[in-house]
Amino acid sequence: MIIQLDKQCSQESYQRITQRVESIDYQFKRIQTQYGDYLVCIGKSEFDIRSIGALPGISDVHRVSDQYKLVSAKWKVGRTVIDLGDNVRIGGDEVVVMAGPCSIEGPDQIESSVKALLKCGIKIMRGGVYKPRSSPYSFRGIGLEGLKEFYKTCREHGIKIITEVMQSSQIEDMYPYVDVFQVGARNSQNFNLLDALGEVDKTVMIKRGISGSINELLQSAEYVFSGGNERIMLCERGIRTHETAYRNTLDLNAIPILKKKSHLPVISDPSHGIGIREFVVPMSLASVAAGADGIIVEAHERPHEALSDAAQTISHEDLEVLVGKVRALESALKN
Amino acid sequence: MIIQLDKQCSQESYQRITQRVESIDYQFKRIQTQYGDYLVCIGKSEFDIRSIGALPGISDVHRVSDQYKLVSAKWKVGRTVIDLGDNVRIGGDEVVVMAGPCSIEGPDQIESSVKALLKCGIKIMRGGVYKPRSSPYSFRGIGLEGLKEFYKTCREHGIKIITEVMQSSQIEDMYPYVDVFQVGARNSQNFNLLDALGEVDKTVMIKRGISGSINELLQSAEYVFSGGNERIMLCERGIRTHETAYRNTLDLNAIPILKKKSHLPVISDPSHGIGIREFVVPMSLASVAAGADGIIVEAHERPHEALSDAAQTISHEDLEVLVGKVRALESALKN
Amino acid sequence: MIIQLDKQCSQESYQRITQRVESIDYQFKRIQTQYGDYLVCIGKSEFDIRSIGALPGISDVHRVSDQYKLVSAKWKVGRTVIDLGDNVRIGGDEVVVMAGPCSIEGPDQIESSVKALLKCGIKIMRGGVYKPRSSPYSFRGIGLEGLKEFYKTCREHGIKIITEVMQSSQIEDMYPYVDVFQVGARNSQNFNLLDALGEVDKTVMIKRGISGSINELLQSAEYVFSGGNERIMLCERGIRTHETAYRNTLDLNAIPILKKKSHLPVISDPSHGIGIREFVVPMSLASVAAGADGIIVEAHERPHEALSDAAQTISHEDLEVLVGKVRALESALKN
Amino acid sequence: MIIQLDKQCSQESYQRITQRVESIDYQFKRIQTQYGDYLVCIGKSEFDIRSIGALPGISDVHRVSDQYKLVSAKWKVGRTVIDLGDNVRIGGDEVVVMAGPCSIEGPDQIESSVKALLKCGIKIMRGGVYKPRSSPYSFRGIGLEGLKEFYKTCREHGIKIITEVMQSSQIEDMYPYVDVFQVGARNSQNFNLLDALGEVDKTVMIKRGISGSINELLQSAEYVFSGGNERIMLCERGIRTHETAYRNTLDLNAIPILKKKSHLPVISDPSHGIGIREFVVPMSLASVAAGADGIIVEAHERPHEALSDAAQTISHEDLEVLVGKVRALESALKN
Repeated sequence: MIIQLDKQCSQESYQRITQRVESIDYQFKRIQTQYGDYLVCIGKSEFDIRSIGALPGISDVHRVSDQYKLVSAKWKVGRTVIDLGDNVRIGGDEVVVMAGPCSIEGPDQIESSVKALLKCGIKIMRGGVYKPRSSPYSFRGIGLEGLKEFYKTCREHGIKIITEVMQSSQIEDMYPYVDVFQVGARNSQNFNLLDALGEVDKTVMIKRGISGSINELLQSAEYVFSGGNERIMLCERGIRTHETAYRNTLDLNAIPILKKKSHLPVISDPSHGIGIREFVVPMSLASVAAGADGIIVEAHERPHEALSDAAQTISHEDLEVLVGKVRALESALKN
Repeated sequence: MIIQLDKQCSQESYQRITQRVESIDYQFKRIQTQYGDYLVCIGKSEFDIRSIGALPGISDVHRVSDQYKLVSAKWKVGRTVIDLGDNVRIGGDEVVVMAGPCSIEGPDQIESSVKALLKCGIKIMRGGVYKPRSSPYSFRGIGLEGLKEFYKTCREHGIKIITEVMQSSQIEDMYPYVDVFQVGARNSQNFNLLDALGEVDKTVMIKRGISGSINELLQSAEYVFSGGNERIMLCERGIRTHETAYRNTLDLNAIPILKKKSHLPVISDPSHGIGIREFVVPMSLASVAAGADGIIVEAHERPHEALSDAAQTISHEDLEVLVGKVRALESALKN
Repeated sequence: MIIQLDKQCSQESYQRITQRVESIDYQFKRIQTQYGDYLVCIGKSEFDIRSIGALPGISDVHRVSDQYKLVSAKWKVGRTVIDLGDNVRIGGDEVVVMAGPCSIEGPDQIESSVKALLKCGIKIMRGGVYKPRSSPYSFRGIGLEGLKEFYKTCREHGIKIITEVMQSSQIEDMYPYVDVFQVGARNSQNFNLLDALGEVDKTVMIKRGISGSINELLQSAEYVFSGGNERIMLCERGIRTHETAYRNTLDLNAIPILKKKSHLPVISDPSHGIGIREFVVPMSLASVAAGADGIIVEAHERPHEALSDAAQTISHEDLEVLVGKVRALESALKN
Repeated sequence: MIIQLDKQCSQESYQRITQRVESIDYQFKRIQTQYGDYLVCIGKSEFDIRSIGALPGISDVHRVSDQYKLVSAKWKVGRTVIDLGDNVRIGGDEVVVMAGPCSIEGPDQIESSVKALLKCGIKIMRGGVYKPRSSPYSFRGIGLEGLKEFYKTCREHGIKIITEVMQSSQIEDMYPYVDVFQVGARNSQNFNLLDALGEVDKTVMIKRGISGSINELLQSAEYVFSGGNERIMLCERGIRTHETAYRNTLDLNAIPILKKKSHLPVISDPSHGIGIREFVVPMSLASVAAGADGIIVEAHERPHEALSDAAQTISHEDLEVLVGKVRALESALKN
């Protein structure tokens, strides 16, 4: 059960509410976010929800039987729209395209990427400065200084930044330069990191684990929400299966299912989801047709020379074609 | 290596060709289909392909390093278009929609289905009369008499029939009443059945195995082609993964990859691919956006009462909506 | 519910029983096997089982809530022991080792295999004469004539034969020369084949599907039992997962679980289960420690030269070592 | 290539070595651990390894083509044996049994566990004080104070402690009370945590990821080793597959393969690997038969009341039976 508390819920009302919750043998946790004040209540006994809803200090109350609570679609009227400022919104009327290189390499590459994004009308740039790598001997990103460069150029052109954070100790340093903190697939159940991002007032995009379940992804999002941060997007990026003809199996079934189960925006990552350059465009279109609120795509001026994940990176020319097709598709589906 | 023989290749030329092939230590198999005469040659040594191509009796010759040969895109100019007659084509300019109930139940249901298909402009009806079932105690289909009913009504209205064949001994009886023989996921590597379908001059649609690889699906198709039958479509119907939020994981990555690897038409089965009624429409659209040549969908007048696979069967009303959206999408993608 | 009928159940008693079953809204199917006469009853209503058990003509009655019925451990007292004659038993006190080449190649190879088996005290020889192959261009086995040779040599030395049957039309020809019909992983849900083997009075070993579930394997066995044949063994042979360091993932969890769920003997196939020669011995031992009633192993005089599946075939010397270790393990576990 | 440097390798010799490495276009990284001084060299060109081995300052040099280097079996003579002091060794002659509750609950439970371990001759106790949980609302462990209690009681009785660390900021506080830091499956690719554990002079046990590959597990171990810490054990704990009859699929294939690929000790976790109490004993025995250097098992005085993972926790009585059988098996396999 989720109880939405009135903004002006008095201390006295609050106590009466929690006493009632305890009286039906439910445990509760108060969650205060940027936008609301909630009591998440967990228990098993039967009770009359109206007798709780009628208490003073409560704006609304809903049963939520899912293991995740605050990220469930069951209590929230309407879908979450995330506003990054400057008219950049995720989860609203328009499908959002985020693009950029796998790794930030340096000023020239940032410039060329920003230029390509502007040409396509893309307003959010991706790019890693901390890179999780299977091998300790691989390139691990250019770090905070790179992020500052990235930020400087993007801000000049009104472009928002999404980039991966790998551990909670990085958050503070990264904070001024980031619009969306990305949690990578390998950290999808790094609960300490999720806890820490719950305390931040910036948007978080959580990628599904390498073979994470849909339920686990939603529970990871619940960590962030219950930590106090409602600004969350979910990202499908492919799961690991037996098939070896491509890198991951992009699970587009997850798109309509996540949108049904949760009120959060759902993003698709076709670049990692198939891992082969020439198939990124069709899988982007398929993502949009399946109902994704946005896509995140790896692009580079000279894709074959990209410092990391070159195999799945598309060219800026293809990015432009992609955006054109996404817009055509979007408008066909609306009518 | 695939050698396409001239239709008038003389016995003498043929002998010279096979001697040359043997001289480079390749094994060969002659394949004669409805449409062509091929020598599939398998070996490892290096050789000058031009010296073979120049021999009399040969119309073309191509290296094909894949494990599958005749179904590979490497030797064939253009894509395979299957003509079922009466202007019904698969793999051509238009996305094909096939629809109908999971199981044929009887005359009334056939009538209502045909009526719904005609309303949507659908020209191929699906419906099982032999049903593979995990449990021996489940309904196994109404059999040949049901197929005859199915045929009678469809023919009256110019509708083509696709239905599952489960073993080679059924082929002869089913033959007069079937336009496309469907090989189910559980029979995807039933090599005796595939061999037998290679000898039939009717179209075959092979579903990918329950956790079949893309490579295995292509090799299963190779069985049919090398048996003498070029009229083959490939069907992605979802693979088995760890995820339990839906029935199967529809692997749309497979669509553009199969179209790249093979010249055969590629069909998507979103009904089995997600297994949940309310998500069949978005997954159909995603299939088309990914590049599928067609989709095959389970539909029923009263979906909740369908005799089998009720959970994934959509209503005739939703089918009509679906076809409308598919056409809109198709036209958006063409421009 | 499974009702075991008395051998002398009169027609009158039988009618009274089936009327009672119908009166509680259960559907029933009578199954007559080599060993018993059963009524498998399927339904959902509540009823007093004693009121049925008390009817004349019934020797015992049990509730079986599993989807599989006759192969369930819930109704049968004790485990199934299969007697192949000449003191060769499967599922009894001793772990059974079955061994031999992947494919039967010819008289010399049969001779050398039989000699190796006799040296180790192995009484069941495996060897394929019909080989399911992913590619139509691969070696498909030497067929019935090979089986006759195989049979002749084995019979001279008191060795029993297990070999794969690929389709129901082969059963009649193979019947005189086979002690155990093996159903391969790719045919694990070939329901027509399973139906046909239900009508045969010879032992059947069913391999789990390539990514078959435990529940599906048991239901496949139910096909054979409900067809009239109780002589069934189940075989774990590895499932398909994401891991590429070996051929299949031998799922030894399945061993104790199958033995709990079913009364049938459970065999492990470590050769296919790992697919790498040098690891077949440890995985054989692990299978026995997990509780397998037997193992089936590929062995060849010159393993590197074996005509098929050379990568997983062990030498006759290693087979001897293996059997010694299995016996040591067995005796350690008994004390 | 791994170059083992002499302990007295002079600065001059070192420079000559690195110049030679650079001259063949290899990149190198110097790794100094508790036990050795290594140059890990990565490159692609061909060269004469003897010309490098002959340089002063080098004790040995080996080609290692694997992606992981220092944890590979290719350069190290003999297997790694980890000495925890007081005659407790892992990877030596005796199979190590580690046992204890899933979560540390309090003094009484610690006492009863220690008593049970002493009775069985078990010298390493497991128990979580920081628990990774899918849901933010679940019990997350009793934390550092619990660890101190855990330590106090264990030290009194000469029992070593293995417990999970979830993030690098916990290491310093936990350090005095821990003998083996466990990295859980969800943190198997938490590279910052692995880096930090590389700087610690205590043993680390890394669990395979939820659907981690064998190669990834070895690369995660490479992080720790290349950070400066050679005291590493690898742990197979089951992978995620399609099968739902149990919690995870214990992948015993991984045991002999990890032992072949790496010189590190290999542990099996049958409790998580099957997740069902009654099957933990057979899967423990199977692990030992497959060649595991040790097993780690969840046990509790009243298993049904265990605060976490009750379903897979065995009783102290069963633990004693288990240890007896492991010893019997071990001795049977040695002879």
